[in-house]
Amino acid sequence: MTALNRFPELGVPDRGALDAFLDSQWAGVLSCAVDGEPLAVPMLYARDGDRVLLHGSTGAGALRAVAAGASAVLTVFALDALVVAPTTFESSVNYRSATIRGRLTPVDDHDAALDRFSDVLVPGRTREVRPPTRKELAATMVLSLGIRDGGWLLKVARDWPATPEEAGADPSVWSGLVPVRSILEEPVPAPWASEVPVPPSVRRLVESQTTADDPVLSPDEPMEEQR
Amino acid sequence: MTALNRFPELGVPDRGALDAFLDSQWAGVLSCAVDGEPLAVPMLYARDGDRVLLHGSTGAGALRAVAAGASAVLTVFALDALVVAPTTFESSVNYRSATIRGRLTPVDDHDAALDRFSDVLVPGRTREVRPPTRKELAATMVLSLGIRDGGWLLKVARDWPATPEEAGADPSVWSGLVPVRSILEEPVPAPWASEVPVPPSVRRLVESQTTADDPVLSPDEPMEEQR
Repeated sequence: MTALNRFPELGVPDRGALDAFLDSQWAGVLSCAVDGEPLAVPMLYARDGDRVLLHGSTGAGALRAVAAGASAVLTVFALDALVVAPTTFESSVNYRSATIRGRLTPVDDHDAALDRFSDVLVPGRTREVRPPTRKELAATMVLSLGIRDGGWLLKVARDWPATPEEAGADPSVWSGLVPVRSILEEPVPAPWASEVPVPPSVRRLVESQTTADDPVLSPDEPMEEQR
Repeated sequence: MTALNRFPELGVPDRGALDAFLDSQWAGVLSCAVDGEPLAVPMLYARDGDRVLLHGSTGAGALRAVAAGASAVLTVFALDALVVAPTTFESSVNYRSATIRGRLTPVDDHDAALDRFSDVLVPGRTREVRPPTRKELAATMVLSLGIRDGGWLLKVARDWPATPEEAGADPSVWSGLVPVRSILEEPVPAPWASEVPVPPSVRRLVESQTTADDPVLSPDEPMEEQR
């Protein structure tokens, strides 16, 4: 079974893989230290090239508490499978996680960045709706977290359970993976929109999910050596 | 449309709802402040009554970096729907999030806590496999984060899009929800276990998912007033 190349936890140094993972998810947890105490806020994010955009209200929103200049870590996590091994000790999960560390900075292209934010989340949506008003733009804060060399970490765990022999377990004990998948379901129109066709942006978004990668690595699939 | 009772963000002061949410998820992000810098680690957790158990390797694992006594926040987040409004400004997401703040403490019932951890993640699994060995128990660190009054926050956003009238938008613009659901798929046996029946623990786990709550609140469903 060593052919399965079990790696319990892997740092993946591939920036393209980081971008693909960030682009496949919607939300992360933004962690900061404020007066020596941890502050953590779940947030939507949108990757835009070498920066991650975060937005929030200019009022009493969570992003205001953090404020520009703060040292921050954004953590994005996706659970891909439960690894049910022949022992509880060997049991684990397959997952992908990214952490991006840096300082939150104000963007110098506020209005464009906000449009970009919307368009990353639901590509094409900005062309289907009216532009934001001055008032709406003024009510929204946009901060950026740069993706810098040495400032990010991508981990991918794609494991299979140990054999009973490896685990010193009863050979009749079942083991395997329970894949976990996050799916977008059919759009549900607002009550006032039930006669309006689902727009291309939303239709594409939902259909693009059906071609998502399988969360389970085939046991025969060679996995690149990565550290 | 005011009958829809749109609440953009809600703190839910119901401890039972907190427990139910924590029990419905597997992983969170543990945030600490170390020397004034934020440290964030995605981790599996298991709620056990009024405490949340975290475990890791006694070696160079992430939990060791945090260590007992540290002030910490565990954030658990689930995305339930994209709220596609008639404007980008009004668009948002429906979600559930919990933050639990406190100090990480060593448990005084290490072996029992570890069994409990396994049994919360896959209920009944500990009865299907051999007990952990002394060596396995010694290799695993268990820390606890207490769920204290005033030390936790549960937020539940269950919104519907604004109407075009409310948003000052074109009345012909579609709006609605795109539900997001996390599902457990059919178990995949390890190559050496393909002839072994799927055990009751795993079977129950997967089947329990099929009765999960609908992530979309019906527009006609009255939502309790909550702050």
